[in-house]
Amino acid sequence: MRIIGIDPGLRITGWGIVDAEGSRLVHVGHGTVTSDDRAALSERLRSLYDGLYEVVARYNPGGAAVEQTFVNANAASALKLGHARAVALLVPAQTGLTVAEYEPSVVKKALTGSGRADKAQVAAMVARLLPGIDRTARADAYDALAVAICHAHHGATRSGWAAQAR
Amino acid sequence: MRIIGIDPGLRITGWGIVDAEGSRLVHVGHGTVTSDDRAALSERLRSLYDGLYEVVARYNPGGAAVEQTFVNANAASALKLGHARAVALLVPAQTGLTVAEYEPSVVKKALTGSGRADKAQVAAMVARLLPGIDRTARADAYDALAVAICHAHHGATRSGWAAQAR
Repeated sequence: MRIIGIDPGLRITGWGIVDAEGSRLVHVGHGTVTSDDRAALSERLRSLYDGLYEVVARYNPGGAAVEQTFVNANAASALKLGHARAVALLVPAQTGLTVAEYEPSVVKKALTGSGRADKAQVAAMVARLLPGIDRTARADAYDALAVAICHAHHGATRSGWAAQAR
Repeated sequence: MRIIGIDPGLRITGWGIVDAEGSRLVHVGHGTVTSDDRAALSERLRSLYDGLYEVVARYNPGGAAVEQTFVNANAASALKLGHARAVALLVPAQTGLTVAEYEPSVVKKALTGSGRADKAQVAAMVARLLPGIDRTARADAYDALAVAICHAHHGATRSGWAAQAR
């Protein structure tokens, strides 16, 4: 199954695509979609939507997962983040995909065995699990690949997953 | 100019359409789009998107305004509201509209002269300014019409508005 992982952010949203066949993972692509912070909020959301839509249309994933970001920030930041997450959830849903959500600690645990691993440890595991990926990728893309790998890991251990496979 | 006003909410998003010609206002339509709170968040956003998209396609507004909701709630509620607002901003932007945002106090002041008017006072003014509208409309639709009227009011006093008129 081809999985898209998304790490939402209003300025930079990371995306990563992996093919998961059993326990085997293959890197397919990754990148970021961005919005201009001088533009109106509605325009920024449109940019993120258009960018993600193009990625989904190009790679045609059969599964999607989004990082469920912490809301320990203040309400104004949470509102802003909510806007970006909405786009990340909406675009895959519009192509008929069920969108899984994972808390950051779950993603970290799936990758490194510890829910409290730091970003560098997660990135190192992404690079190890997906050999050959571009080491110069942005952190947001690494985070998105980590979410995709987490979903592959969880999916592979769930019995209902086979029915969704394509 | 035909204006759509939107009062975003994850469970119920209100919409209202008015035609503004100079200081004259004509009620065109109003209603709500809803999402099932038992569905996955991605599905709920898809429902709101599809519902609003249909409204925009049907009425073809030339201007759009969204209520800029307070973020004095906790971060979790703000995040949730951010999701709904993102859809409210995104859909009109996708048809090429500039989306204005108004704080609730600005909407109240435009309608009643006081930024601290209560919901009943605002609804009464909406009914007075748009005679003949269905008095049984939901509060969310009244709020959305109030936002549209506020935008008409502000637009009519801005010199740049004529260029956008259609």
